[in-house]
Amino acid sequence: MTAALPVTGAWRPGDPQGNRQFFTFPHDRPFALDTGVALHDVAIAYETWGRLDATASNAILVCHAWTGDSHAAGPAGRGHTSAGWWDDLIGPGKPLDTDRWFVVCSNVLGGCQGSTGPASPHPVDGLPCGSRFPVVTVRDMVRAQARLANHLGIDVWHSVIGGSMGGMQVLEWAITFPQRVRSIVPVATCAQATAQQIAWGAIGRRSIRLDPNWRGGDYYDAEPGEGPTEGLAVARMVAQVTFRSDNVFTDRFGRELADGSELNGRLDLWQRFEVERYLDHHGEKLIRRFDTNSYLAIGKAMDLHDVGRGRGGLRSAMARVKVPTLTMGIWSDMLYPSYQQRQIRDLLVEQGGRAEYVEIDSPHGHDAFLIEFDQVGPPIGRFIDEVAKG
Amino acid sequence: MTAALPVTGAWRPGDPQGNRQFFTFPHDRPFALDTGVALHDVAIAYETWGRLDATASNAILVCHAWTGDSHAAGPAGRGHTSAGWWDDLIGPGKPLDTDRWFVVCSNVLGGCQGSTGPASPHPVDGLPCGSRFPVVTVRDMVRAQARLANHLGIDVWHSVIGGSMGGMQVLEWAITFPQRVRSIVPVATCAQATAQQIAWGAIGRRSIRLDPNWRGGDYYDAEPGEGPTEGLAVARMVAQVTFRSDNVFTDRFGRELADGSELNGRLDLWQRFEVERYLDHHGEKLIRRFDTNSYLAIGKAMDLHDVGRGRGGLRSAMARVKVPTLTMGIWSDMLYPSYQQRQIRDLLVEQGGRAEYVEIDSPHGHDAFLIEFDQVGPPIGRFIDEVAKG
Repeated sequence: MTAALPVTGAWRPGDPQGNRQFFTFPHDRPFALDTGVALHDVAIAYETWGRLDATASNAILVCHAWTGDSHAAGPAGRGHTSAGWWDDLIGPGKPLDTDRWFVVCSNVLGGCQGSTGPASPHPVDGLPCGSRFPVVTVRDMVRAQARLANHLGIDVWHSVIGGSMGGMQVLEWAITFPQRVRSIVPVATCAQATAQQIAWGAIGRRSIRLDPNWRGGDYYDAEPGEGPTEGLAVARMVAQVTFRSDNVFTDRFGRELADGSELNGRLDLWQRFEVERYLDHHGEKLIRRFDTNSYLAIGKAMDLHDVGRGRGGLRSAMARVKVPTLTMGIWSDMLYPSYQQRQIRDLLVEQGGRAEYVEIDSPHGHDAFLIEFDQVGPPIGRFIDEVAKG
Repeated sequence: MTAALPVTGAWRPGDPQGNRQFFTFPHDRPFALDTGVALHDVAIAYETWGRLDATASNAILVCHAWTGDSHAAGPAGRGHTSAGWWDDLIGPGKPLDTDRWFVVCSNVLGGCQGSTGPASPHPVDGLPCGSRFPVVTVRDMVRAQARLANHLGIDVWHSVIGGSMGGMQVLEWAITFPQRVRSIVPVATCAQATAQQIAWGAIGRRSIRLDPNWRGGDYYDAEPGEGPTEGLAVARMVAQVTFRSDNVFTDRFGRELADGSELNGRLDLWQRFEVERYLDHHGEKLIRRFDTNSYLAIGKAMDLHDVGRGRGGLRSAMARVKVPTLTMGIWSDMLYPSYQQRQIRDLLVEQGGRAEYVEIDSPHGHDAFLIEFDQVGPPIGRFIDEVAKG
């Protein structure tokens, strides 16, 4: 890694703000986490598209995944390294038509793109929290979003929509605040993280801990280029393989070498295949825009995700979902296999709920929800329209 | 990790020998690797069961996988930390009946259980080779085994049998030495490593490189407990997840915590789920019996595996296989999916060969070939008998 690398990819006040807006919780209203720890002066970064109507009945919350942020729509530009991650779905005339809907997306609690997270200053000394940042849960993320909704004057979301960890938030919204959602769309997600999902998460955690530059999480005073980037890159490699699929890797990379040469007598342990170059590229992209501690915090929140925790188990928790539900899966998803979304549908239907499952026909694996816009968008557009008509 | 950990889990002369025998290549017969590098005084550790008959026609070669060794059968004991990895298949009255067959298993070149590998002394200074050990390929492993066969007086193997990397050796035997095999049994393996398989391998490599104790591969003079064990443990975690399956992890571990407690307010980033304890356990077992550099060397050999390299491609290489073939797969194998073994069967049948595919019905994933002996053994026993009858 080169010396030009930042110590952390966290957004800091003073960086270009882009379209971000900020809501800071009133100082006299600390935010109690699932762990019992109270956070003060929590800030939530968010973006909106469209206009909230007079009765505040046209609001839709879109929830982002692990390394996502509030920039769900709109171009790349100052403050945003790339175009919105669902830019094809959100905008005038698009499935989430911003001529009709008021769309909100906020950076999750624990994140690093404007919302309070491990890189945020600690109230006691003003230094980054680092290892002092507490464990957060998906429920904490959702309760923080609820405060944002209050601030925006939104009592009820017409729909809460999201994929992967976004879908975990979607389910927690419907269970924690059944009166505040009119419909939900959990995509490529699960009601509780499985042992295999936890295992992938654990490998990422261990990779980061192995990086001497991680320093137990207190690395923010490191020199440029000496942040815990290698550990994060390895963690990202693990995720990136699980986000895609065997077939797509074979079609795209095969057994090509990264430098275009042929395998011959000059074999070397560190000679890279093209797929390794691809994984390195994704690791390097991530370390420039993301904070390692946020990666850990959000990964742990996903591993802790279980809608049944403290609610008498899975069935009992899912019985709280009272609204029309569209759940979507991807047949080639090895990380959140489609049986998990069919399970969500089945649990809801069993108890008399209105739930449908739509399968995305894509070889791209988990990431298909960020790729196959032609398949993801129309069912969502149709569904939220049906909900509006009753 | 505790100070009691060895720097390396390599077997060293002076350690209990167990059932191992050794064949050292004559000093005047250096061994030329695929890379062009020549190794001197190569030693191959091996074990045998049964008796070679007068015409040397009853010999079967069993090939081990990544972290396997020559101890395919027999009890645990001095020199062997556990019972043979195919002990249920090899022995009197078992599918590989040692009252009839002379079974041989050798530790691969590049390994650490008696055969020449990175922990072996360098001829120039007698110190461990470490980073000086060259890249080896599956073809090198097989050509070293061929020298062992010469030494044992075996011109033709009745069958060459193995799973995973063992199956790669099996295919290379049939292609490199078509006159020296009478039949082959490649199990849960592939004709060429795919991009996804290379990706998993690359993550393990990067984890080890991230371990400051790895020291570029020259760590053999480290103090006890200061070997590159953490990096190897993380690499092993990756492999261990790919060796098993989602379903089995869910059934066995679910979302239990390692300490048996309930998830409650005392959430901690390093609190372990049961599946994490399991992965840690497997990592700790491996670092006591294996050498990190051997793990790298053998992993790289698997990534380089491509029977078509330098032979005009896959079809052209497979056309050299002229003997009856039984290939076996496991439906739940996510690492070497069963389409890869069906592909081996199809390629052979297309060109008029005699090949059959048997699927192991197991939820255990790739490791099923080391677990489901009741399904693995009988087809192999039947097949080698049919081959004997012509």
